[in-house]
Amino acid sequence: MNRLITLAARPEGMPKESDFRLEERPMPLPGGGEVLVQTLYLSVDPYMRGRLSGVTTYVPGLDLGEVIGGGVVGRVLESSDPRWSAGDIVEGMLGWQEYAVAPARSLRKIDPAAGPISSALYVLGMPGLTAYFGLLEICRPQPGETVVVSGAAGAVGSLVGQIARIKRCRAIGIAGSNEKVRFLIEELGFDGAFNYRETPDYAAKLKQLCPNGVDVYFDNVGGAITDAVMRHIASHARVAVCGQISQYNSVGPETGPRWLSQLVVRQAKVEGFLVTQFADRYEAGLHQLSTWLKEGRLQYREDVADGLENAPQAFIRMLEGKNIGKQLVKVAD
Amino acid sequence: MNRLITLAARPEGMPKESDFRLEERPMPLPGGGEVLVQTLYLSVDPYMRGRLSGVTTYVPGLDLGEVIGGGVVGRVLESSDPRWSAGDIVEGMLGWQEYAVAPARSLRKIDPAAGPISSALYVLGMPGLTAYFGLLEICRPQPGETVVVSGAAGAVGSLVGQIARIKRCRAIGIAGSNEKVRFLIEELGFDGAFNYRETPDYAAKLKQLCPNGVDVYFDNVGGAITDAVMRHIASHARVAVCGQISQYNSVGPETGPRWLSQLVVRQAKVEGFLVTQFADRYEAGLHQLSTWLKEGRLQYREDVADGLENAPQAFIRMLEGKNIGKQLVKVAD
Repeated sequence: MNRLITLAARPEGMPKESDFRLEERPMPLPGGGEVLVQTLYLSVDPYMRGRLSGVTTYVPGLDLGEVIGGGVVGRVLESSDPRWSAGDIVEGMLGWQEYAVAPARSLRKIDPAAGPISSALYVLGMPGLTAYFGLLEICRPQPGETVVVSGAAGAVGSLVGQIARIKRCRAIGIAGSNEKVRFLIEELGFDGAFNYRETPDYAAKLKQLCPNGVDVYFDNVGGAITDAVMRHIASHARVAVCGQISQYNSVGPETGPRWLSQLVVRQAKVEGFLVTQFADRYEAGLHQLSTWLKEGRLQYREDVADGLENAPQAFIRMLEGKNIGKQLVKVAD
Repeated sequence: MNRLITLAARPEGMPKESDFRLEERPMPLPGGGEVLVQTLYLSVDPYMRGRLSGVTTYVPGLDLGEVIGGGVVGRVLESSDPRWSAGDIVEGMLGWQEYAVAPARSLRKIDPAAGPISSALYVLGMPGLTAYFGLLEICRPQPGETVVVSGAAGAVGSLVGQIARIKRCRAIGIAGSNEKVRFLIEELGFDGAFNYRETPDYAAKLKQLCPNGVDVYFDNVGGAITDAVMRHIASHARVAVCGQISQYNSVGPETGPRWLSQLVVRQAKVEGFLVTQFADRYEAGLHQLSTWLKEGRLQYREDVADGLENAPQAFIRMLEGKNIGKQLVKVAD
């Protein structure tokens, strides 16, 4: 039998464990051109929240009863396609289940000799590429510029700050606990950071940490944090909107101060992006990220929950900002 | 004596005529490298509102008692610089006064044979260049795309829609009266337009006029109009923020629905700009605009008030959206 987690109810606001259901179903059987994969690690990421509401945006909404979608690193058990053999380690969008069948061409090969296989869901996977292309292509940071990142201790944010440092920028992080702030400054080498939960006046804090204004803002969070950063952007600032995690659990549309006049005054740009728009350059991005990783220029932390049954809890933790670094779930050895 | 208009009081909200003062002062005398110019036409433009509040943004704020700044077309009366001779027609930032002294290098030569000299303050001046570079460089419209412009019957907006048509886009205008809507469709050839003052549901109207979404949005207005357009942008939409006239007279900061998530989903870009960032290409822009004008591909209307003393009223009319086309003030023949 296969164990899997399906959508039991559409969450209202922050998801609850009862919105998910652990089910058993017969093992899937690979057909022609398909591969049977055993899940080793699965990824929980902020963008998944939107799918639970059933609204199709850039990823299709999920139906009730459907397996929760998401990135997985797994081991090939059976393949009817010459590209794959039993034992290969692969990455793909296989969802929250112990076993999955996938089209052979939808999988990416992972080299276990190159590092921990879980990194295919992080530094050498979607979050790494998101940080890399989002920062470098959307924001084009220049040496000496000040780069601010929200959600800075999360999977994408922690890489954005470090890539900014590699590019000789000042990296300033905004995060939700003092432990995260210490992690950013002491372990990742950020030039500054603050805990927004204990900072009454974000704008004053930003002014202090970014005396020449914010040249680049990489936004994972939105809401009041972003309002404050927008008031403090420098001329010709570039803002990449990667995510808006503060809004994902809003029941109705939130309102906030208008700041479009500020874009005119600063001749500034705000751009939303999806990592998939850089798909034809993933290989180059992964090569650079893996080089930096080998050179010890990128530090990272994984926050690993154990067991498929704990995936909903891990997902909720991540939405609540309780993880430091990349939230993963280990499903099998 | 010279007659001029100064800032008598800082406006709160919409400016009143009593915020301005008509004064007489001695005629200014040109020094070395300076030119004495007689004002023929002066320009009133939305951006001037910010200066009255005394806040320096991209233009310095005005002090109380200072002459109101602004673009002027005038005639050279005296020059101590070999570049200019009496009788030359020039354009410069000379302000609301009958006579002004300016550095010789700050003036631009206008050829009266090339068309009405007032066009140096409109199609062949700052508003024309704003429409031209803002639309073409910030938004890069492609043939077949849908271009929406707010403040569509104003100086910049009416050109944006026509340039969009020249580039084989669909041009949709948003304006504030039925007369303006008729002007856009019947005189300027817009593909569609609506009067927001008589449209209860902007979003529904946009959906009807732009069934494939908004590829390009050129925003002069902001506020609830822009909120509605942002909900209806197409994938890879480009938004140029030129002005936010709905906000200029706000006493406190206005709030509105947050829409940054929409930028991610649509992989869309919002960019504020100032025409001055294209200063090194003005000549090419003016050449193209003047070619289109001669070919009859750009129609325009001027809304001309008569007499320096009526400049404040003309400025207020323009902020209230009562003008169709470019608001000017004729000061002398």
